[in-house]
Amino acid sequence: MHDFMSVNNERHLVMGGCDMAQVAQKYGTPLYVMDENVIRANCRVYKNAIDTCYSGNGLILYASKALCNLETVRIVASEGLGIDVVSGGELYTALRAGMDVSKICMHGNNKTRAELEMAISSGVGRIVVDNLFELDQIDAIAAEHGVRQKVLFRIKPGIDAHTHNFVMTGQIDSRFGFALETGEARAAILRAFKCNSICVAGVHCHIGSQIFEADPFEEAARVLMRFIAEIRDESGVELTELNLGGGFGVVYTPEDDPIEFGDYIEAVSRIVKTAAVEHSLKMPFIMMEPGRSIVAEAGITLYTVGAIKDIPEVRRYVTVDGGIGDNPRYILYGSKYAALIANKADAEVTQSVTIAGKCCESGDLIGENMPLADVSIGDILALLTTGAYNYSMSSNYNRNLRPAMVMVKDGRDRLVMKRETYEDIIRNDV
Amino acid sequence: MHDFMSVNNERHLVMGGCDMAQVAQKYGTPLYVMDENVIRANCRVYKNAIDTCYSGNGLILYASKALCNLETVRIVASEGLGIDVVSGGELYTALRAGMDVSKICMHGNNKTRAELEMAISSGVGRIVVDNLFELDQIDAIAAEHGVRQKVLFRIKPGIDAHTHNFVMTGQIDSRFGFALETGEARAAILRAFKCNSICVAGVHCHIGSQIFEADPFEEAARVLMRFIAEIRDESGVELTELNLGGGFGVVYTPEDDPIEFGDYIEAVSRIVKTAAVEHSLKMPFIMMEPGRSIVAEAGITLYTVGAIKDIPEVRRYVTVDGGIGDNPRYILYGSKYAALIANKADAEVTQSVTIAGKCCESGDLIGENMPLADVSIGDILALLTTGAYNYSMSSNYNRNLRPAMVMVKDGRDRLVMKRETYEDIIRNDV
Repeated sequence: MHDFMSVNNERHLVMGGCDMAQVAQKYGTPLYVMDENVIRANCRVYKNAIDTCYSGNGLILYASKALCNLETVRIVASEGLGIDVVSGGELYTALRAGMDVSKICMHGNNKTRAELEMAISSGVGRIVVDNLFELDQIDAIAAEHGVRQKVLFRIKPGIDAHTHNFVMTGQIDSRFGFALETGEARAAILRAFKCNSICVAGVHCHIGSQIFEADPFEEAARVLMRFIAEIRDESGVELTELNLGGGFGVVYTPEDDPIEFGDYIEAVSRIVKTAAVEHSLKMPFIMMEPGRSIVAEAGITLYTVGAIKDIPEVRRYVTVDGGIGDNPRYILYGSKYAALIANKADAEVTQSVTIAGKCCESGDLIGENMPLADVSIGDILALLTTGAYNYSMSSNYNRNLRPAMVMVKDGRDRLVMKRETYEDIIRNDV
Repeated sequence: MHDFMSVNNERHLVMGGCDMAQVAQKYGTPLYVMDENVIRANCRVYKNAIDTCYSGNGLILYASKALCNLETVRIVASEGLGIDVVSGGELYTALRAGMDVSKICMHGNNKTRAELEMAISSGVGRIVVDNLFELDQIDAIAAEHGVRQKVLFRIKPGIDAHTHNFVMTGQIDSRFGFALETGEARAAILRAFKCNSICVAGVHCHIGSQIFEADPFEEAARVLMRFIAEIRDESGVELTELNLGGGFGVVYTPEDDPIEFGDYIEAVSRIVKTAAVEHSLKMPFIMMEPGRSIVAEAGITLYTVGAIKDIPEVRRYVTVDGGIGDNPRYILYGSKYAALIANKADAEVTQSVTIAGKCCESGDLIGENMPLADVSIGDILALLTTGAYNYSMSSNYNRNLRPAMVMVKDGRDRLVMKRETYEDIIRNDV
C-alpha cells in the first residue's frame, strides 16, 4: 500500500483518515475513492518546482484527461494550477467548475470547429495548434470574434521516450503536431506570424506517458530551446513560452521505480537555463502538464468479491462487481495494479490470483498473477492507483452502471460523483 | 460495401433507402446508423431455422450485449425473438422496451444479489446459473418471493473454437460456468435438483465469438446431448432445454468468409436429432443467442474527416471526429473494418491510410492499412459493420460525447438514440 495509507484496529484499510470498508458499506461498490490531500500534495510538488526552478515564471496545467470532473477541477484550481483540456466536454467541465479561463489550455489533434468556437468565444488562455487546417480555422474564428488568440505550436521533437508503443507520442510517426526535422514546424510558425488574429506565444511538446527517466525530458527541452533560437534567427521574433507537456511515470506496482518529480524538473530547468544562455534567449514562461502523476496514486477502486473459481492447475479467478467497464486498462495495455483486501488490510499475501470482472467478455480482467491474501466472497477488494484513466476511460459495456466517486480528507468522506442509475442508462434512448 | 447498400446519382452511399451524406448533414457526426430491415432479416434467418430445423420447438434470444437500447429491443421483440441480458442495465432496458418477460434469459458470471432480485422479482423466464454461490442465492431469493425459478446451467464443454483468445470461452480455463470433464457440472445439477425453489430446465454453452466453422457448434451439441443423457441415467430426470449460445462469425472485411447461418443451424440440428435417437432422449427445446450476427452488418458509423497528415515514407493519417470513444475495438482487439467515403461512394480505392480519432491518445486508431479512395477534409467517412459492440463498448474518454443513433428504413430516417450533451457529461458530477 502507499505510504499515505494505514491499517486501523479493525484491520481495515484507512485512506484520508477514513475506513475504506465503512466507506464501501456506506456508498456501495464498485466505488472510486480519492484522497484529496494526496492530490493537493502532488499539485504542490509541481507548483513548488516552478517557484524554485523557474522563479515562479510558469504555470502548471493539470492534464484533465486523466480525471475530469467538477470537484477535481475545483481542487487543482484552488492549488493555483491551470488546466489542459482536450475536448469540448473537458472545456465545459473546466468552465462550469469555475476555472480561471486564462489558465485553460486547449489541446487536440482534431478539434472540431464547434470546439474551437467554444474555446475562442470562452476566451481560453491558449490553444495548442496541431496542424495547418486548424491554424486557419483558429485565425478565421478569432477574426469573427474580434480577438487575437494566443497559441502554442505542438512540435514533434523526434524523441523516443522508451515507453509503451501506445503512449509514445514524440516520435516522427505520430499524428500529433508538426515535425521538426522536416521543416514542417518552422514553416507553420512562419505562416502563423502572418495571421492577423493569431498571437504565436510559443511551442509545446509531449513526448509520451509513464516515463521514468529524466533524459528524454532534458533532450526535449534542449531541442525546443534550440528551435526557438532558430525561429528568432530567421524571423527576428523570439517566442516566449515553452510548454514541456507531461508524462512523468507513476508507480502502479512495486516493479515500477518511484521518481522524484522535483529532481527531474530541476534537471530539466538546468538544461533550459543553459540553453537560454547559449542561444542568448530570455528565460521562457514554462508550462508543464502533469495529469496521471497528480491523481493516479490518490485513487483506489473498491469492489465486492463475488464468485471465486478454481481452475485446477491453471488459476484461481476472483470475480468482483466491476471490471472492464470501470477499468479497461488491463485489456487495453496490460497495465498492472496492486490489490489488497480492505477489510483485512494487514493480511499476508498467500496466493497469486486472476481478478476478473462481471462482464460477459473473456477479456474482462483486472489483472493476472496478482499477489493477494486469502480472500472470501463478500470481502472488499481495494485496487490501488486507479485515480487516473480509470473513470475517464470507463464505459457502460453490458449496460453496467458507472461507479460513484467519493473524496476523502481528514477523516471525512463526501460524494463527488453520483453512481449512475438505470434511468441514466436509457436517458438518451428514444 | 454490403449488398443491401447502393450508390445514388449524387454518388452518395444509400442505406435503407436513405442518402447517408444527407443523414450525416441532418443529424451531425459522428453518427451511428442502423438499417432496420437488415436487423429484421437477420432475426428471420434464425427464427426460420428454428421453425424449419426444430419444428418451431425453440426460441431465439437476441444477445443484447451486442447492442442494447429501447428501439433495438422493440424490433427484435416484434420479430418474435426473446432476449439474453447480462446485467441489471440490460434487463431494465428489456423490461422498459416491453419485452415479454418469459422470453428474457439472464446471464452473467458474477450477477450481483441486486441483479438476481431484480430478475426473479420481474419474473424472467430463465436464469443461466454460472456457479454454486449463485445457485444458492437464486434458491434463497426465489424462496423469499414464493416462486420456483427456472434455470439453465452454463457448461464449459471443453471445446476450442479456434478464435481470438479474448473471445474464446468454452475451454476449461474460463471463468464462465461449470466444467464438464471434472464432474463439476454434474455435481452442480444434482445439487440443484434438491433446491426447493429451483426448476432445472436444461443446459447452456457458449463456445466463443466470431466462429466461422460449423464443427465446434456440432461438437458442442453432441457433448451437451450426451451430458443430458448421463444426467438422466444417473438421476432419472431428463432435462428438456438446450441453449447452444451464440458466436456465429460476421464479415467485417473481405478477408472474412461469409457463412450461411441457416446451413450451420441445420447441420447442428442433425447432430441434436441423431443424439436424441442415440440416447433415447426427447428432442429438447432449443435456444440460440445470436447478437453480433443480428446487428453488426446492419450498422455503420458516419464521421466527418478532419486533419489529414502525411508522415513521409511512413503513413497517411486521416483523422475523424470520433474514434476510440465510439469504437474501441481496434485498440482492444485489432479488429478490422472496411471504410468508404459516403459522399463519393463509387470512387475507386487509390491509397492505404491510417484512420485516427480525435482523442489525445496514440492508440486512438480506427484502423491501419485501410484501403480508401481519395479523401478530403470535410468528406463523410462511412465505417462499415459497426452495429455490434461499438455503441455498447463506447466511452466518454476525453469527455467526448457519445454519438446519436439513427434507424433507417424504406427511405425514412428516425432518431433512436439522442446524442449526448455537455449537460449529460457533468450530470453526475457533484
